[in-house]
Amino acid sequence: MPTTLLTTPAADGFRMPGEFERHSGCWLLWPERTDTWRLGARPAQAAFVAVAAAVATSEPVTVGVSGRHYQSARAQLPPEIRVVELSSNDAWMRDVGPTMVVDAKGAVRGVDWIFNAWGGLSGGLYFPWDRDDLVAQKVLEVEGRDRYRAPFVLEGGAIHVDGQGTLITTEECLLNPNRNPHLDKGAIEILLHEYLGITSVIWLGKGVHNDETDGHVDNLCCFARPGEVVLTWTDDRRDPQYSISRDAFARLAEARDARGRRLKVHKLSQPGPLKRKAAEAAGVDALEGTEPRQAGDRLAASYVNFYIGNKIVVMPLLDARHDRSALATLRRIFPGRRVVGVPAREILLGGGNIHCITQQIPEARGGRK
Amino acid sequence: MPTTLLTTPAADGFRMPGEFERHSGCWLLWPERTDTWRLGARPAQAAFVAVAAAVATSEPVTVGVSGRHYQSARAQLPPEIRVVELSSNDAWMRDVGPTMVVDAKGAVRGVDWIFNAWGGLSGGLYFPWDRDDLVAQKVLEVEGRDRYRAPFVLEGGAIHVDGQGTLITTEECLLNPNRNPHLDKGAIEILLHEYLGITSVIWLGKGVHNDETDGHVDNLCCFARPGEVVLTWTDDRRDPQYSISRDAFARLAEARDARGRRLKVHKLSQPGPLKRKAAEAAGVDALEGTEPRQAGDRLAASYVNFYIGNKIVVMPLLDARHDRSALATLRRIFPGRRVVGVPAREILLGGGNIHCITQQIPEARGGRK
Repeated sequence: MPTTLLTTPAADGFRMPGEFERHSGCWLLWPERTDTWRLGARPAQAAFVAVAAAVATSEPVTVGVSGRHYQSARAQLPPEIRVVELSSNDAWMRDVGPTMVVDAKGAVRGVDWIFNAWGGLSGGLYFPWDRDDLVAQKVLEVEGRDRYRAPFVLEGGAIHVDGQGTLITTEECLLNPNRNPHLDKGAIEILLHEYLGITSVIWLGKGVHNDETDGHVDNLCCFARPGEVVLTWTDDRRDPQYSISRDAFARLAEARDARGRRLKVHKLSQPGPLKRKAAEAAGVDALEGTEPRQAGDRLAASYVNFYIGNKIVVMPLLDARHDRSALATLRRIFPGRRVVGVPAREILLGGGNIHCITQQIPEARGGRK
Repeated sequence: MPTTLLTTPAADGFRMPGEFERHSGCWLLWPERTDTWRLGARPAQAAFVAVAAAVATSEPVTVGVSGRHYQSARAQLPPEIRVVELSSNDAWMRDVGPTMVVDAKGAVRGVDWIFNAWGGLSGGLYFPWDRDDLVAQKVLEVEGRDRYRAPFVLEGGAIHVDGQGTLITTEECLLNPNRNPHLDKGAIEILLHEYLGITSVIWLGKGVHNDETDGHVDNLCCFARPGEVVLTWTDDRRDPQYSISRDAFARLAEARDARGRRLKVHKLSQPGPLKRKAAEAAGVDALEGTEPRQAGDRLAASYVNFYIGNKIVVMPLLDARHDRSALATLRRIFPGRRVVGVPAREILLGGGNIHCITQQIPEARGGRK
């Protein structure tokens, strides 16, 4: 039965595995709040159902939902998906869920970061976030896994790892004074070592243009496997994303991973540019203290925001002009997996995408280092 | 992952095992409502913690709690107990939880009875009971067990079984027009066969005097093992319980179980008589529609309301004049188990006892028939 540990994962011999390593399952939360999700959250719920159903073809899926929406979620989700009561302030399991770590003997534990709604009272997206900050603990209780409570603010979407000691992140997010103003780059690297077993951090600069998470790396760049990353891309010099992706590419080209390798960088052309339509903005309930959703907002759209399941890659379909090309690119990058697209504009309208709403649980078994 | 089945347990080869058969774990709910539990439910919470901790020495325990009380419950319960978010209308897991059934191959499934708060709008104890009626389904989702939704009202505390085809219950409860007015004795026996694999029902008359559940058998009489039952008892002719226990004894003496055996009846002397004190009544919040708690109420106190765990029997301590004798009796009846007493007057004040607040999950394994 789960316990909160007073040691650190590195001290106990644990590391965060890559998302492409084997999972025992995947968790999501149910979208409910009508100041994030338009039209009473019903279109978003349909999109989440499609994502959950796609992932469930490859590994067991659990969806957490408030007591009030339990029956509605249970009715909308396919029967093979487990539905558990789990209240939250919104539906971003990547950021509020646990980051799981494993050891060489096959044990699995969870890291529970402090969560402050992407910036607390200085640019955070809503208030309060008290239920969100309990989600990781509740997931670990249901999973029966021991828990580390990390002493600093972090979201799962702010990091990607290769499972071999390398982590990529962005300065925009991890060095933002609205997260851990008392920690500098060196102190953060030490904590990433202590809590994830990381020995090498690759710092990118900014995240995707207009990303309200303060530049989460999971919308910009991710590992496909050790030594290979996927980067969102545009060749349009007038697009504000151009210089961001160019800068990221330059840093990645310079980088060495924890094992001393250079990285192979796969460019993945972005959709759009996409903007929020007036009808889409009109369906959102305004609430003071919540980030407003306005017509004409540039959406932080990126195909990199996909989920890697055991036998599948679930990627967002966002733009009929680019979806097919993105699918083809990901199929080349992931020849061993089925690459499936799910219509995801409704998730994007809420501020994130498929990777942001999922969180994998690694399989408990030995000798995978 | 769990599915709601359209067949019945008997048709699928499933039966309800005896409580004394091996468990994989035990579930409870957290007491919260201040119109049931005095002084903000804090004394009851302490009693539930003691029960949960005792059971947890013998098998894994999970406690379901509302989102609002999650942190308080987590802080009060020992770390080895799993705490999951699970909202309910009160804390009687025996009655609102699933009744588990097993087959000869070792599969485990759950029966989810319709719940109407012990009588619905005709004598039920509170309104509404919508969250209670979802508890069994939510437990089965967390456990990952398939579910039968039974088409009639029943509570787990209204039945006891020997695991070999015999069920004991009371006419006062199962034939009460506030449960299933459309079903007569024969129809109920057929449904108990269909949903629990029962081939022989032993009908007792009334339950314990002043039991607000309409005479749940689990406060009156239970199986210690096949062929042996424990019956609450008094030799005081002036006590209203006297004739109830005498009648039950006579019926048990006449009965044959599903295998044709006569039953051995162990008499267990009742505590008290016990009454609600003025200070105890004063600490309860009055709420229209909830059964009032008044000073001087005769409490439905019985030592039979114990829980049989894998290696333990957890019995209520209720009356210093009788506790030691009850402990000694149960130790004779259960020589293979540790019999532990837990102070339980606070649970009794809420209207039930240790058996009422627990629900076992049988172990999944084959060949135990």
